[in-house]
Amino acid sequence: MTPAENPSRGARDAFVVVDWGTSSFRGWLISADGTALAESRGSEGMLHCAGGAGFAPVLGDHLARLGAPERAPVLICGMAGARQGWVEAPYIKTPTRLDALHEGAIRVDAPRDIRILPGIAQGEADRPDVMRGEETQLLGVTESDFTGLVCIPGTHSKWIRIEDGRVVEFSTYMTGELFSVIAQHSILAHAVEPTGPTPADSPAFRAGLGAALKAPTALTASLFRLRAAQLLGFEQRADGAARLSGLLIGTELADAIGRHGSPRSVRLIGAGALGRLYEMALAARGLDVTTIDAEQASRRGLAKAAIRIWGAT
Amino acid sequence: MTPAENPSRGARDAFVVVDWGTSSFRGWLISADGTALAESRGSEGMLHCAGGAGFAPVLGDHLARLGAPERAPVLICGMAGARQGWVEAPYIKTPTRLDALHEGAIRVDAPRDIRILPGIAQGEADRPDVMRGEETQLLGVTESDFTGLVCIPGTHSKWIRIEDGRVVEFSTYMTGELFSVIAQHSILAHAVEPTGPTPADSPAFRAGLGAALKAPTALTASLFRLRAAQLLGFEQRADGAARLSGLLIGTELADAIGRHGSPRSVRLIGAGALGRLYEMALAARGLDVTTIDAEQASRRGLAKAAIRIWGAT
Repeated sequence: MTPAENPSRGARDAFVVVDWGTSSFRGWLISADGTALAESRGSEGMLHCAGGAGFAPVLGDHLARLGAPERAPVLICGMAGARQGWVEAPYIKTPTRLDALHEGAIRVDAPRDIRILPGIAQGEADRPDVMRGEETQLLGVTESDFTGLVCIPGTHSKWIRIEDGRVVEFSTYMTGELFSVIAQHSILAHAVEPTGPTPADSPAFRAGLGAALKAPTALTASLFRLRAAQLLGFEQRADGAARLSGLLIGTELADAIGRHGSPRSVRLIGAGALGRLYEMALAARGLDVTTIDAEQASRRGLAKAAIRIWGAT
Repeated sequence: MTPAENPSRGARDAFVVVDWGTSSFRGWLISADGTALAESRGSEGMLHCAGGAGFAPVLGDHLARLGAPERAPVLICGMAGARQGWVEAPYIKTPTRLDALHEGAIRVDAPRDIRILPGIAQGEADRPDVMRGEETQLLGVTESDFTGLVCIPGTHSKWIRIEDGRVVEFSTYMTGELFSVIAQHSILAHAVEPTGPTPADSPAFRAGLGAALKAPTALTASLFRLRAAQLLGFEQRADGAARLSGLLIGTELADAIGRHGSPRSVRLIGAGALGRLYEMALAARGLDVTTIDAEQASRRGLAKAAIRIWGAT
């Protein structure tokens, strides 16, 4: 079959891939072999579009900026596929093969071929969990026979167990969100000075991390101790944010590492200062860490799926 | 020595005791033998008074309402003695005898004999902690040779180890405050319907409690699962508050009970629905629970200390 025979399914010269999150849009024009040719990014995330701007007009603007060919198909991952997004792309259930992700993509009703990749749900009643966007990053950083553990730090950190290319189990930790909520709205607001990102060599971060790894059931007491330490003059307010970060990341690591039977290595999908904190913390626990940039992971995952849908066969 | 010989130290007919918290005032006129003769309560807590109303005028109003004799002395516990309160009553350090608490009381500069009881601080750098107000409740519910564990649930729950009448160690858990901030300001706000107090027989509370006791390091993941369970249709939004409460209380109990080597009994200073939740949860863990009403504990502790200061010798 050649493109001329079946233009809607055959190989294309180029396609557009989009990581469409809650509050951001990142799009790339990709050649048939997966090379990024152009990039367009903006703050028109799912909330912005669902809130009135609409998804089609925002995508149209970015396609123009990318100089996308008129018939180039578009593959999207992320919150645009949520129930409150553009078109819902229902979760596929674990266990599921990452290289079959594109088969769950949902077509948008539009003249152009636009599809949205599904998220993944863990449907067991005692460990329910969901991801949307991260599944595409996982596809981007794993070989089709990969077995191992992947960590994706963030607002909602994820730890994913992959066996022979299949997502078999995962857990989401509210680490980043708890940091924000506690630092802004709890009594610890007095103990946490708003500062820039915590550097990985911060002694207060390491102290918090160590305390949590040593006493991983004590989080809710350790939080109060952070405040008490300052009241009693043991610690400076300037160290509050770093210690809070250490306590929350340490609690996550202790549970995740314990749960997976003290693994020897982990792939870390990280970026910036937060990625470096996790890198340091995981290495300190004796794990071999391979770090892959989060944005690159999304783009590579999208490109892989797009090639499976529209690439030369 | 008789009252006539030393009116400032001798036995009095009556005195006034006040539990002056962050956002409440509770005062009692007490006879020389500790019996409550009258009660006066209001919302003029420490924040209200420090914010402009002043402490002396508020106390004056309540003394009038109580019909307190002109020379009746006043003993206060709670946040009125904090740094940001009326007069700071510095923390006394653990280990400390509860029946010597009154010796740390600070005199307010006023014509009447007004004293504020100190809080207790745990000064070790690796487990810093503070209490202010709870020390008086502890005095109220323990005999002078008491050995055992006391739990005081609340915004900042406290677990206190007492040996032969001395506070030797304690931990504060941010359980109640975390419930509020998470329910109001996190993504779980969508999963937690504002409801009345959780009944102790709520299946969702018991499920959350059980999950936390089984996996006490998993709190930050269990919180996200609460949301995921609703997204996937396993749970109703109406059950969110009860489950969140169960998760947080269960995490506190697992740590506190583990820390104290699985004790066989505990004195619970509780009140209302929250007290009943702890009662049920502790009993379910096989502990003998003796519950004492929180307000009664404060009043009895204040009366005990007042009698030591001003009572007949």
